[in-house]
Amino acid sequence: MNVLAIGAHPDDIEVYCAGTLLKYKQQGHNIFIALTTSGNIGSNEYENREAIAAQREQEQLEAAKVLGAEVRFLRFDDQGLQDTPETRRAVINAIRWANPDVILAHYPEDPSTDHAVTGRIVSEVMLSIPGKLIPADEPPISKNPSLFYYTSAAGVGFLPDVYVDTTDVFPLKKEALAKHTSQFNWMDVYQSHNLLNIMEINDKFRGLQAGCEYAEGFRAFRIHGYMPNFKLLP
Amino acid sequence: MNVLAIGAHPDDIEVYCAGTLLKYKQQGHNIFIALTTSGNIGSNEYENREAIAAQREQEQLEAAKVLGAEVRFLRFDDQGLQDTPETRRAVINAIRWANPDVILAHYPEDPSTDHAVTGRIVSEVMLSIPGKLIPADEPPISKNPSLFYYTSAAGVGFLPDVYVDTTDVFPLKKEALAKHTSQFNWMDVYQSHNLLNIMEINDKFRGLQAGCEYAEGFRAFRIHGYMPNFKLLP
Amino acid sequence: MNVLAIGAHPDDIEVYCAGTLLKYKQQGHNIFIALTTSGNIGSNEYENREAIAAQREQEQLEAAKVLGAEVRFLRFDDQGLQDTPETRRAVINAIRWANPDVILAHYPEDPSTDHAVTGRIVSEVMLSIPGKLIPADEPPISKNPSLFYYTSAAGVGFLPDVYVDTTDVFPLKKEALAKHTSQFNWMDVYQSHNLLNIMEINDKFRGLQAGCEYAEGFRAFRIHGYMPNFKLLP
Amino acid sequence: MNVLAIGAHPDDIEVYCAGTLLKYKQQGHNIFIALTTSGNIGSNEYENREAIAAQREQEQLEAAKVLGAEVRFLRFDDQGLQDTPETRRAVINAIRWANPDVILAHYPEDPSTDHAVTGRIVSEVMLSIPGKLIPADEPPISKNPSLFYYTSAAGVGFLPDVYVDTTDVFPLKKEALAKHTSQFNWMDVYQSHNLLNIMEINDKFRGLQAGCEYAEGFRAFRIHGYMPNFKLLP
Amino acid sequence: MNVLAIGAHPDDIEVYCAGTLLKYKQQGHNIFIALTTSGNIGSNEYENREAIAAQREQEQLEAAKVLGAEVRFLRFDDQGLQDTPETRRAVINAIRWANPDVILAHYPEDPSTDHAVTGRIVSEVMLSIPGKLIPADEPPISKNPSLFYYTSAAGVGFLPDVYVDTTDVFPLKKEALAKHTSQFNWMDVYQSHNLLNIMEINDKFRGLQAGCEYAEGFRAFRIHGYMPNFKLLP
Amino acid sequence: MNVLAIGAHPDDIEVYCAGTLLKYKQQGHNIFIALTTSGNIGSNEYENREAIAAQREQEQLEAAKVLGAEVRFLRFDDQGLQDTPETRRAVINAIRWANPDVILAHYPEDPSTDHAVTGRIVSEVMLSIPGKLIPADEPPISKNPSLFYYTSAAGVGFLPDVYVDTTDVFPLKKEALAKHTSQFNWMDVYQSHNLLNIMEINDKFRGLQAGCEYAEGFRAFRIHGYMPNFKLLP
Repeated sequence: MNVLAIGAHPDDIEVYCAGTLLKYKQQGHNIFIALTTSGNIGSNEYENREAIAAQREQEQLEAAKVLGAEVRFLRFDDQGLQDTPETRRAVINAIRWANPDVILAHYPEDPSTDHAVTGRIVSEVMLSIPGKLIPADEPPISKNPSLFYYTSAAGVGFLPDVYVDTTDVFPLKKEALAKHTSQFNWMDVYQSHNLLNIMEINDKFRGLQAGCEYAEGFRAFRIHGYMPNFKLLP
Repeated sequence: MNVLAIGAHPDDIEVYCAGTLLKYKQQGHNIFIALTTSGNIGSNEYENREAIAAQREQEQLEAAKVLGAEVRFLRFDDQGLQDTPETRRAVINAIRWANPDVILAHYPEDPSTDHAVTGRIVSEVMLSIPGKLIPADEPPISKNPSLFYYTSAAGVGFLPDVYVDTTDVFPLKKEALAKHTSQFNWMDVYQSHNLLNIMEINDKFRGLQAGCEYAEGFRAFRIHGYMPNFKLLP
Repeated sequence: MNVLAIGAHPDDIEVYCAGTLLKYKQQGHNIFIALTTSGNIGSNEYENREAIAAQREQEQLEAAKVLGAEVRFLRFDDQGLQDTPETRRAVINAIRWANPDVILAHYPEDPSTDHAVTGRIVSEVMLSIPGKLIPADEPPISKNPSLFYYTSAAGVGFLPDVYVDTTDVFPLKKEALAKHTSQFNWMDVYQSHNLLNIMEINDKFRGLQAGCEYAEGFRAFRIHGYMPNFKLLP
Repeated sequence: MNVLAIGAHPDDIEVYCAGTLLKYKQQGHNIFIALTTSGNIGSNEYENREAIAAQREQEQLEAAKVLGAEVRFLRFDDQGLQDTPETRRAVINAIRWANPDVILAHYPEDPSTDHAVTGRIVSEVMLSIPGKLIPADEPPISKNPSLFYYTSAAGVGFLPDVYVDTTDVFPLKKEALAKHTSQFNWMDVYQSHNLLNIMEINDKFRGLQAGCEYAEGFRAFRIHGYMPNFKLLP
Repeated sequence: MNVLAIGAHPDDIEVYCAGTLLKYKQQGHNIFIALTTSGNIGSNEYENREAIAAQREQEQLEAAKVLGAEVRFLRFDDQGLQDTPETRRAVINAIRWANPDVILAHYPEDPSTDHAVTGRIVSEVMLSIPGKLIPADEPPISKNPSLFYYTSAAGVGFLPDVYVDTTDVFPLKKEALAKHTSQFNWMDVYQSHNLLNIMEINDKFRGLQAGCEYAEGFRAFRIHGYMPNFKLLP
Repeated sequence: MNVLAIGAHPDDIEVYCAGTLLKYKQQGHNIFIALTTSGNIGSNEYENREAIAAQREQEQLEAAKVLGAEVRFLRFDDQGLQDTPETRRAVINAIRWANPDVILAHYPEDPSTDHAVTGRIVSEVMLSIPGKLIPADEPPISKNPSLFYYTSAAGVGFLPDVYVDTTDVFPLKKEALAKHTSQFNWMDVYQSHNLLNIMEINDKFRGLQAGCEYAEGFRAFRIHGYMPNFKLLP
């Protein structure tokens, strides 16, 4: 089975759904990651966008190595991602590239705008996956993937439909997240916790709700023709 | 695995979730049915409550034979079922009797009052299943069943979380429902369709949404300690 | 056509839906009012419950005269009304007595408890209207009335589905409400406005939303067999 | 009275609201249809967009003949329709062209993206109908139409506010839909049912809820100045 | 100022809102606690209800000492608490006894039934606080307290309106909770975490959302006459 | 403290939140206003957009004088405002210019499109306030403002979280609104009330709910890093 996780910035996958990806990997599935931006703007540590993007993509590739995942960078600007023909086309390409049975994406109601826009685009292009005349660079695919939304930033406004117990892969998830070294300094302005703490506190809370030590929570997207199959979750 | 379906009236199980029960049966699981009332009041065809109850229980037993299910009648009055210590106790007894891994029950927001009250009581007694001092006649059990709500009457106000494809067992479901012969005459006052039609139209509509011919839709109950396990659905 | 308005206390009908009743009256329909309580407890102006009830029922009868309505008092205690076999039976009786095509009742999510309980009971007994074995003192009726909920107290948490323009009957509504003279003194504890102001401000606000001077807002109850017919609204 | 139905693709009107249009027609009203796209992309049966559009517009015109409706094609690309100054302008033009008392449009929460975007644009331009300086090619109109949303694709996530009984015009609706012959082959990828079945199952289900054989369900749009008038529904 | 926290079982206050109570205490306010049950049934560690209640009340009194609070035990049976004239009366008594400016109570949508029923009763009796004829044993009071709901069990289905930073009192909260020694053994059936962990994980998660180390989240109850004053929160 | 109110058109601030601004001013805070459009299109009184904008900006400056506020005009076209890189940049500039502790903005679910889009952009750029690489012309700021949404047009679909008593500043609010003289003639098409009445009826209704004569209601925006501080409300 192919599993595709789509995030807005390098580190989103590792913070929000890498535990589930690691479970899939354990079960022998193929893991793909696509990022709509390389987080080139929303950071104050570097002098220019190119430097940031280069650094963060490098970190993402190292994190992906821990997860055993392939990565595709869509490279739009962050902190202002919008739903346009270009961003839709790039997301369609990414989905066709991964040929997924399951897609994990940001929650469209995430109050963090790049997250929400990414989640919305993914939801909107579901019906465009099989069409041969759709503006895209990758050929159509014929699968009907299930789409699950992972948690919003800090879990604000997010009530999971379903949980995945990630206790046994939690150390590896932490290791993957730790690769995003550039994200552990600059968050002094509106972040009160560092990334590892944010991730650990969130996963413990979802674990508490689910009856295990660590868990990740998901909501399902429901659309005619692509009804979510909960049994595909690990 | 043990599966318990709890309904308010004879015929509710056959109308709303018998397809899923039949799928469970196919897989070798044990099926139990509990009914909070015997529908002794809300019918205009018979002269007294005892006659109705006797007739409808008989029909229910015949329907259960088709499903391969054991039945427990709680025998409260219908069209006015309430959440009281007595009804809670009877529902706790029924759950402990079936020792279920999965419970299927009415949706607590069903606009039909007996349905809603039955669904609410089931939800409320979940934490009482293991307690040895709980007022009950059956001994405590130690399972943490998943609770799924089946559709409201005519699907009003009901948006499923998840679907079960019941296409292959649909003829058998129909056969089970047809045993409730007393329910095919009197519904002239506020029913515009007979029971078989109601059931078939609903299951076709859920099938349409789910991408198959016939389906049953469910919503999950989420509570600390008894988080729903979607993989237990057939 | 027969129209029944069900309220929790004397004055509720006049505050919340008397404009709509007056419109119905204008059109030649028959108006009925039923009150679950006589407001015998939730008032600090009188020394005992009987004195309050007598006074308030008298005021209600005078208000009903302005509306051209018949009144039925169910006489349960207020500030603690509950959903019991007795209150359900009394509400069933009231509905059968009025034989209504349209029912107006409190919104079941009204934060004011007697209002909510009254609204919930009305919703719950809808399916009991035609049953001959239902515990009741009035004979079954065969109509399928539409049920509309009028606004919650001070409109808190209430978003109307539909509006009725009551501009031309507003002076008469005011006259009817003014009959509840006992309710114009004691409300110093938690009321900042007197009853006439509460009513006028609310109706002006709904008028503003609806595009007229004064209006009353309603939400519809949806249940299989009794789907609301919006065309029955005046 | 003038009635305007706005859809995203040829066949949407016939699938979702043609029964209501036929009822209006029966009553002597004028029917107008506007389509934001000609479905030129989201189809795999043809080799190029122009061929598809030509074929589908032709089918739409034949279907419209059955409905007795005039059609306006806005001709944006489907499977990627967006809310832009151009699409807004075209929708404003369409509304002014039809000079409608009632507008029927897609539900803005429809999970199908072209549907949702079409529904959102219609909602957004309501206040632009009368303005003479609004960027548009048709002159301002002075009506305040009521806007009702018809069902989402396969009814997913859709709970109707109100129903229209379409039983007597159902055969004609079927005839109109059957004109979209190109849509009866290719839907093998994510459609499990053909268009006629989708439509019939949906209308039977709404009929079941409404107490008739076939019905169409609607939700109302509420905005200051254009409050929905439910009595304008047939 | 007087602050009253109402819970369903001994330990609920310490798990869910003791941090906020400690902040109030720091500011010089008077703290009151009322418990609808003494948790005499929902525990498997003891042989009889009296023994459990005695033990748990003792623990509650010790916890209250840490909080500097007075305690009132209402002593209904747990795992089946219901909304009755008796439970309403007892809750009215408790509120009048504490004469509070702020009330903290369980969330009425908490999936844990005793919690929900307690929260519902508190909400329902708000308008009964000032009435001299209300069935009660304590004299009426004239304050209009603000009511805030603390988190549901394990935060399931709970989205806070507002947060209180409890970082500096967290060690004391932990000390208070630790007094409930009887609750640290028996929870093996459906609890995966012990009480201290449940509490700490929850408060860290709310702290993460609020931008501090530990926090408690609340939702406000809105009713005419008792609109919540957020400035009364510490 | 700095307070920034962001609106879509000249007069929005005065209609919806000027009372709260006046309370802030009373307390010695600095008031800033930013308008995404100058209402140059959605008016039928003038012959061209420039004339309208000039007139309305002049009125806005006079209204701002009454409020003691500085004004920044972003000057996009109204009746079609969209979320684009340009509008986001202008809103970021406005926020950085005001360096606010509190932001008041339109509700993103306001059915009036320019209002909704303005409210959505403000919400989306919150995380862009501190970033030095964000496309903007004003330097980054380091505050974490609380964002509150004021009421939708005519209060449609709006349920306040919290209220501000504006009784004592109401006459001044009225005086400020009256400066928008151009808006008191042309609204004949879809407005049934003039602006002063709209405002007064709305504020009386919110006062009724809040227990005072006049009030303004707000909803809070919740996002990680910028959790609303209700104590900053006047």
